[in-house]
Amino acid sequence: MISFECDYNNGAHPKVLENLIKYNDAKPTPYGFDEFSERAKERIRVACGLPDAQIFFLTGGTQTNATTIDSMLYQYEGVICVGSGHINVHEAGAVEFTEHKIITIADNNGKMEAKTLDKYLDDYMHDGNKDHAVHPGLVYITFPTEFGTLYTAKELDDIYQVCQHYEIPLYIDGARLGYGLMAEENDITLPYLARHCDVFYIGGTKIGALCGEAVVFTHQNAHKHFFSIQKQHGAVIAKGALIGLQFDALFTDDLYFKLSEHAIKMAMRMKQIFIKKGFEFYVDSPTNQQFVIMDNTLVEALSQKMKFTHFGQADKYHTICRFVTSWATTEEELDELEKILG
Amino acid sequence: MISFECDYNNGAHPKVLENLIKYNDAKPTPYGFDEFSERAKERIRVACGLPDAQIFFLTGGTQTNATTIDSMLYQYEGVICVGSGHINVHEAGAVEFTEHKIITIADNNGKMEAKTLDKYLDDYMHDGNKDHAVHPGLVYITFPTEFGTLYTAKELDDIYQVCQHYEIPLYIDGARLGYGLMAEENDITLPYLARHCDVFYIGGTKIGALCGEAVVFTHQNAHKHFFSIQKQHGAVIAKGALIGLQFDALFTDDLYFKLSEHAIKMAMRMKQIFIKKGFEFYVDSPTNQQFVIMDNTLVEALSQKMKFTHFGQADKYHTICRFVTSWATTEEELDELEKILG
Amino acid sequence: MISFECDYNNGAHPKVLENLIKYNDAKPTPYGFDEFSERAKERIRVACGLPDAQIFFLTGGTQTNATTIDSMLYQYEGVICVGSGHINVHEAGAVEFTEHKIITIADNNGKMEAKTLDKYLDDYMHDGNKDHAVHPGLVYITFPTEFGTLYTAKELDDIYQVCQHYEIPLYIDGARLGYGLMAEENDITLPYLARHCDVFYIGGTKIGALCGEAVVFTHQNAHKHFFSIQKQHGAVIAKGALIGLQFDALFTDDLYFKLSEHAIKMAMRMKQIFIKKGFEFYVDSPTNQQFVIMDNTLVEALSQKMKFTHFGQADKYHTICRFVTSWATTEEELDELEKILG
Amino acid sequence: MISFECDYNNGAHPKVLENLIKYNDAKPTPYGFDEFSERAKERIRVACGLPDAQIFFLTGGTQTNATTIDSMLYQYEGVICVGSGHINVHEAGAVEFTEHKIITIADNNGKMEAKTLDKYLDDYMHDGNKDHAVHPGLVYITFPTEFGTLYTAKELDDIYQVCQHYEIPLYIDGARLGYGLMAEENDITLPYLARHCDVFYIGGTKIGALCGEAVVFTHQNAHKHFFSIQKQHGAVIAKGALIGLQFDALFTDDLYFKLSEHAIKMAMRMKQIFIKKGFEFYVDSPTNQQFVIMDNTLVEALSQKMKFTHFGQADKYHTICRFVTSWATTEEELDELEKILG
Repeated sequence: MISFECDYNNGAHPKVLENLIKYNDAKPTPYGFDEFSERAKERIRVACGLPDAQIFFLTGGTQTNATTIDSMLYQYEGVICVGSGHINVHEAGAVEFTEHKIITIADNNGKMEAKTLDKYLDDYMHDGNKDHAVHPGLVYITFPTEFGTLYTAKELDDIYQVCQHYEIPLYIDGARLGYGLMAEENDITLPYLARHCDVFYIGGTKIGALCGEAVVFTHQNAHKHFFSIQKQHGAVIAKGALIGLQFDALFTDDLYFKLSEHAIKMAMRMKQIFIKKGFEFYVDSPTNQQFVIMDNTLVEALSQKMKFTHFGQADKYHTICRFVTSWATTEEELDELEKILG
Repeated sequence: MISFECDYNNGAHPKVLENLIKYNDAKPTPYGFDEFSERAKERIRVACGLPDAQIFFLTGGTQTNATTIDSMLYQYEGVICVGSGHINVHEAGAVEFTEHKIITIADNNGKMEAKTLDKYLDDYMHDGNKDHAVHPGLVYITFPTEFGTLYTAKELDDIYQVCQHYEIPLYIDGARLGYGLMAEENDITLPYLARHCDVFYIGGTKIGALCGEAVVFTHQNAHKHFFSIQKQHGAVIAKGALIGLQFDALFTDDLYFKLSEHAIKMAMRMKQIFIKKGFEFYVDSPTNQQFVIMDNTLVEALSQKMKFTHFGQADKYHTICRFVTSWATTEEELDELEKILG
Repeated sequence: MISFECDYNNGAHPKVLENLIKYNDAKPTPYGFDEFSERAKERIRVACGLPDAQIFFLTGGTQTNATTIDSMLYQYEGVICVGSGHINVHEAGAVEFTEHKIITIADNNGKMEAKTLDKYLDDYMHDGNKDHAVHPGLVYITFPTEFGTLYTAKELDDIYQVCQHYEIPLYIDGARLGYGLMAEENDITLPYLARHCDVFYIGGTKIGALCGEAVVFTHQNAHKHFFSIQKQHGAVIAKGALIGLQFDALFTDDLYFKLSEHAIKMAMRMKQIFIKKGFEFYVDSPTNQQFVIMDNTLVEALSQKMKFTHFGQADKYHTICRFVTSWATTEEELDELEKILG
Repeated sequence: MISFECDYNNGAHPKVLENLIKYNDAKPTPYGFDEFSERAKERIRVACGLPDAQIFFLTGGTQTNATTIDSMLYQYEGVICVGSGHINVHEAGAVEFTEHKIITIADNNGKMEAKTLDKYLDDYMHDGNKDHAVHPGLVYITFPTEFGTLYTAKELDDIYQVCQHYEIPLYIDGARLGYGLMAEENDITLPYLARHCDVFYIGGTKIGALCGEAVVFTHQNAHKHFFSIQKQHGAVIAKGALIGLQFDALFTDDLYFKLSEHAIKMAMRMKQIFIKKGFEFYVDSPTNQQFVIMDNTLVEALSQKMKFTHFGQADKYHTICRFVTSWATTEEELDELEKILG
């Protein structure tokens, strides 16, 4: 059965697997202090245009968010996020587990708006009781957002300016970073993004790797004991080269970007299929996740023929369905989708 | 200078102080296992109409909320609260400090609505990814709310029915419980409230005591090691009789209710003064906190003559000002207020 | 029945109570920002010989330890303590509750030894895997210790030199500080102690107050957001003057020292009574806690006539019994003890 | 340069890698709910002789310990462990990070003794102040221990009987489980071990896998929301089949045991080499870690020719060196070791 369920229900890209096989007997130094991890970091630095970036590899998104956020905050500080933000709704309270509050503000199609952020921080600064409140210590956004939407270069710059004005760092969750960067309407490059935040992560799990995310601190601002914090979070693996080797492959010959581009091409064809069939969308997404509004009875029928997920109820009779492409999606799968939709 | 700043800027009621003086040399058993604390608990059980209630004394509101909530939740559970809830905005992240998430839902004039709660829980129960989310483990409301508003008996019953339907306990923060119970329009009695929740606390700090809150578990549902949890939170005082003696006085001859009634009488006179002078209110509060909308220049002028707090901006030119009465507010202070307002 | 059970089973010293009564209607600024708290702090600064000390009032010992320690540590750091240290055995895991490890080292009659500390830190510094271990971030000692023993001026200096060598701050738990300072054999003054540590607390609960401990940061080294951390811990009381007024009384006319001196005088007479009756001691304590070894059958018999606590088993047939004096102990009670022992 | 540094500085066993390659395109259900993970669990159940065991896959040892321990404890409980236990010294405070105390007791060559455990628990149960202490909620041992030593069947049974007497579950950390089970002098089988504890984990990272540990709850005693707790800890990977496929290979045709057996054979030859050369051992280890006492100058010289680790100082002039074999160690490496030692 074809599946548009998610972008993490497949294995690794062949070149990633190849790298693991090739160096399986290389006896790398443990805990990520190996030459392959170093080589991968150097490739990422080049791709980001940040020769001084500090890079750490972790295994998954929730782990990466909780560890990075915890490393950036004092105990009395919290992280600002839109209510629909991934850390606020889909990570089982992993941030609160580190004793930090997620301070939620309103979103616009999944995106944080600079003016909303500015209003919150301005109110906070003028609050006579602010020492009785959680201090805002970090701003968290995702690129793309939970709804697949993207910040424009201007919007990102606006948010980062607010952050800099209040001297609060900006963290970008890039679980699907490539799928955002390679979107047709996107006007942000990886170096631009890297210059407009304090820390971000490049998601590997959803784009070609078996596991692994690369956290990038952009200006020598990683906690000096980040490794110990990572260990304390259970977020260090003994054979760190497992992740290093995968990112080494992903950042060789632009593989990461090519894989992402393919997923976008597939997503845009999928979008056209749905448009052609007269479907409406919950949100206009330019990335690899498409949110289609469907009659409940149709949802039931289609569920027998392919995999996709229910994102929520549009109204009593309609469901918001999520269809996802990935680097592994094929034209044949889309042909099949077209056929099924009839 | 007269002050309507808050209801905790005075000492103890004379009868409370008297009790402390009277038994100062009684050598009570430490850690709250003394006869005075036991006597106070018995008086509270009678007032609540709950012969089996389990009662614990703690020193302040934030401590009480964090300890009680933590004792009611498993590690992967969070507490549901309206966005304006005290634990969400004014307790410096004390709940998150215990590793639990505060799950916020929309309010209506500070109140949680049964239908909003039901919608949230229904969505949660039908969420295919609910194991990736924080499990709702407790519902938190305050009586009165942050805006001084009150639940009707019907509204409380509705909320409790939703809680019971989903088998999630209900906790009522009663930092100002007396001021709610004695409000003119209130139709909830202490026994009614006690029968419509699983745990609540009776605030002493704001109603006659120097410090102290009484947590009441309504049906033998206190954690069997609540004392150890309390100790772990730094929420046990060695000389527990300090709080027991105060509640003993407060629950003798209805002192708690008489003090509360006085504050309400003063608040209603204050409200009439503001109405007579033509002021508008941010919210129609029947309790001891009144939220008056004032021109910014007037706010500036009045600040020289009396104490009150700024609750927020109504618009660019108007401030929401909070004026609070307490058991210690006098008619003379209100005369003075009237005079100042001119 | 006479009681030597503990030093916190009585009320407040009359002068402390008097201060509370006298200023009951003074309408102090809430949260400890009142003039009485300020006056008390100034008196403490003078007593310590530290004009720049930063002082915070909390309600009890466990709360004070957890809050202070948490404020001094980064998330990946732990606190070094002897195995018998109070935070390690009698605080229900309050330090671990703040996510910090207590790193235990061996003691000598309850005291930490500079050489043991030095050895631990030296080993740690040379450990190739030290980033996989908890970083030592604070040293915790108590004065007097759990066994009532005292550090000499030389011993304290030695420990502090080790701390300074490794740039790790020293924290002294002074729950019974006065009882140590006023011991006959003690050669440490309050100013000396204050100059030989980074932070300490002066216990009020056990020496004349109803509740309250004063944390003293000795060289402007308090966390800049200590108040928010305190609030987050549930360790701020709304009517902060309750503690300020008590310390104001305790540090007026050397009351704190006089009360302590009295307890020591009583303890030394008690010690002589036990010596005269031929008892042996578990440890030679110069302070208000005496640890007497008694035949189990005698323990049983005495328990019917007075209160004291079992500290542990000396061997199968003997119990270590703890007898405690306080500022409130009377000569009559000792006469009675003497009579009971026969 | 040959390396006896550790047992996690190599890749995966070829058959493990083969399984990953073979099913790379199988599109498994995410989050570990795939058929390969299920197949691997079934193989483990068979190997353990526990048809009802509940099994969860995590990525590494520290993560597994912290998550499992946290899932087994109430918030006021701690875990008992010998002072040299891995969780106490080499996991960066990951257990304390979950707010639980590690209660340390004395060891004997790295092993917990039933009588020491019994004494601790007996004292605790008789402690009048036990509600002021951390409640013991779990016992943690490792097989083999940090010093490579092993419990006999009798010793394990004794410990488990103490645990059952006090109704406290027993958890066995099996990071190197295979290397213990296949030791020549070992008299414990996997089914025996599985029947003598409540939960244990089978280490994959050190025995043939790239990453991955299998937690086995022996009698339907896993927390009913273990998955959410795992997620909250950042311990779920999206492509769970990565670990499932590896354990599937390891538990096919006894690969796990064969790999372990090989490492033991290599370790015993290594031990003989050291004995023949006249070296003394810090401890008599029957497993894959050998602790050799060496003159400091020799250590220096050997460090130029091969990799091994410093475990500590034996005395001023001698170092305890750790030499480790693994499933990947070759006879040629041991020939080289022999040659180097001369």
